[in-house]
Amino acid sequence: MATVTELLQPVELDLETLLSDLRSLIGAGHPILQAAAEHLFSAGGKKIRPGIVLLISRALSPEGDLTARHRRLAEITEMIHTASLVHDDVVDEAATRRGVATVHSRFNHRVAVLAGDFLFAQASWHLANLDDLEVVKLLSRVIMDLADGEVKQGLFRYDTGQSFETYLEKSYCKTASLIANSARAAGVLSDQTPQQLDQLYRFGRQLGLAFQVVDDILDFTGSEQQLGKPAASDLASGLLTAPALYALEEQPVLAGLIEREFSGEGDLEQALDLVRASDAIPRSRALAETFAREARESLQWLPDSPSRRALLELPEFVLSRLY
Amino acid sequence: MATVTELLQPVELDLETLLSDLRSLIGAGHPILQAAAEHLFSAGGKKIRPGIVLLISRALSPEGDLTARHRRLAEITEMIHTASLVHDDVVDEAATRRGVATVHSRFNHRVAVLAGDFLFAQASWHLANLDDLEVVKLLSRVIMDLADGEVKQGLFRYDTGQSFETYLEKSYCKTASLIANSARAAGVLSDQTPQQLDQLYRFGRQLGLAFQVVDDILDFTGSEQQLGKPAASDLASGLLTAPALYALEEQPVLAGLIEREFSGEGDLEQALDLVRASDAIPRSRALAETFAREARESLQWLPDSPSRRALLELPEFVLSRLY
Repeated sequence: MATVTELLQPVELDLETLLSDLRSLIGAGHPILQAAAEHLFSAGGKKIRPGIVLLISRALSPEGDLTARHRRLAEITEMIHTASLVHDDVVDEAATRRGVATVHSRFNHRVAVLAGDFLFAQASWHLANLDDLEVVKLLSRVIMDLADGEVKQGLFRYDTGQSFETYLEKSYCKTASLIANSARAAGVLSDQTPQQLDQLYRFGRQLGLAFQVVDDILDFTGSEQQLGKPAASDLASGLLTAPALYALEEQPVLAGLIEREFSGEGDLEQALDLVRASDAIPRSRALAETFAREARESLQWLPDSPSRRALLELPEFVLSRLY
Repeated sequence: MATVTELLQPVELDLETLLSDLRSLIGAGHPILQAAAEHLFSAGGKKIRPGIVLLISRALSPEGDLTARHRRLAEITEMIHTASLVHDDVVDEAATRRGVATVHSRFNHRVAVLAGDFLFAQASWHLANLDDLEVVKLLSRVIMDLADGEVKQGLFRYDTGQSFETYLEKSYCKTASLIANSARAAGVLSDQTPQQLDQLYRFGRQLGLAFQVVDDILDFTGSEQQLGKPAASDLASGLLTAPALYALEEQPVLAGLIEREFSGEGDLEQALDLVRASDAIPRSRALAETFAREARESLQWLPDSPSRRALLELPEFVLSRLY
């Protein structure tokens, strides 16, 4: 199986340019933001979101080349993603992300609020200056979805009555919307047909959902070292994801443990055992596989190129984190 | 002298509609945001920013009526303003604003970050859906300026070497940009000529600067009760505004007190005495009067109407807070 670096190889140089552009766009003249930006844009992120935008842009171009607007779109995508991470870490009071100290724990929550606002503001300004109303609408929809998803996540904490639909909606808002709408926006900048735009959107949506379900499975099956955060931290903080929701269907006793917020001794361990003993993990895997297959199917029409081959391998790569 | 309610009388009903629209737009389905929105949109604010957009919109319409897009622009203006207040209060760690508990002190900083993000996101989404790229650019510039101004404000705390230019730039970013660009945007939606758009912008810019200078004077001359916050709190927190910067020119000893961040006993009182004994307050007043006059001059060309008369009285009203 390819590594993410191998997968993103067709746009490796583009991603390097993007990173140095982002560093100079954000930091200029503001020492603290500069430090926050350095910290953010070097913190082990795989830049998979702008990578997808760049791969799609290259795959859609007959000569395989990139315009300045496609590059800017990829930068905007990363700014929005990073801004939302910084603010989510304040809202969720997370001390680390991928094993690295978050901005609000490394600096303080004032800097984190400021850095996030500054990134959102930069993103919306550059967005407007792409001079394409359809692209502005797609990406401003993403910003709405991100805020909406974070609110929804808070609302349904420890709520065992929530539907699977609610979980998928939240996952769409927090993860898939950005990938789906930026994939579509890359297509808009490349003058694709409405049918092709729908397929680009669908690719991003299903890939994003697969990615989220895999993440949610790993929370139950991964070690603290793999995850860069304590195992089962989603469940512990009342976030009910696919495995927990499937397990609730089979093991009604789980509901009681969740509803009392694991306040009894050994509650969390018992809940984990219940999830692991149920069919929840295999069912979640099957769900992720369905999303990944649907993502792959959405891009069959692309003409052959190194970027197309990378895009078609991405869904399998997302699943490979489970093996 | 008219009260603000009298001044805004031509758009009083419009502002009521705006408030109830904002409440239902923001709160829908999110109990905590609902509470935050209720708190925000009833917290004694005079709604002067959307009021200006509405007055300009009515003044520019031959029949004096409002379109749905002008109303939406006024709502977006208030959303952006409110979002930035909520986040500024987190960044500045303010416990009250206009004598009312801030969102982050009434709820907590997580809710404040979330509520601010949600408002910014709503604003940028509605903005995109006004379907006018020029308006999108104007208002996304405002969002940039607000973030930039807050960063600048932090950077220059206790910095006695800062130029008057820096102070005016920061005041433009934090206060005048929103009024100037939303005034211009109202003109764009009303198909005004480039010259008229420049005048609308200038009106908002000079009015915003007058407003900020008046606020900065009141910080030195007002009582805690008038201000809804402790007197001289700007100076105490290292924010150097017009009166302090003018006083620094006359009283070099002031620099030492500021640079040691008022750490000696009686430092702050001595600094206040130095400012009050200098020519700083009269000079600041003269500056505010110049801005107010320039604002008034910018709108002479408007055809007579109740809204025009209200707009031309606004600069004088801003100054009247000093008497």
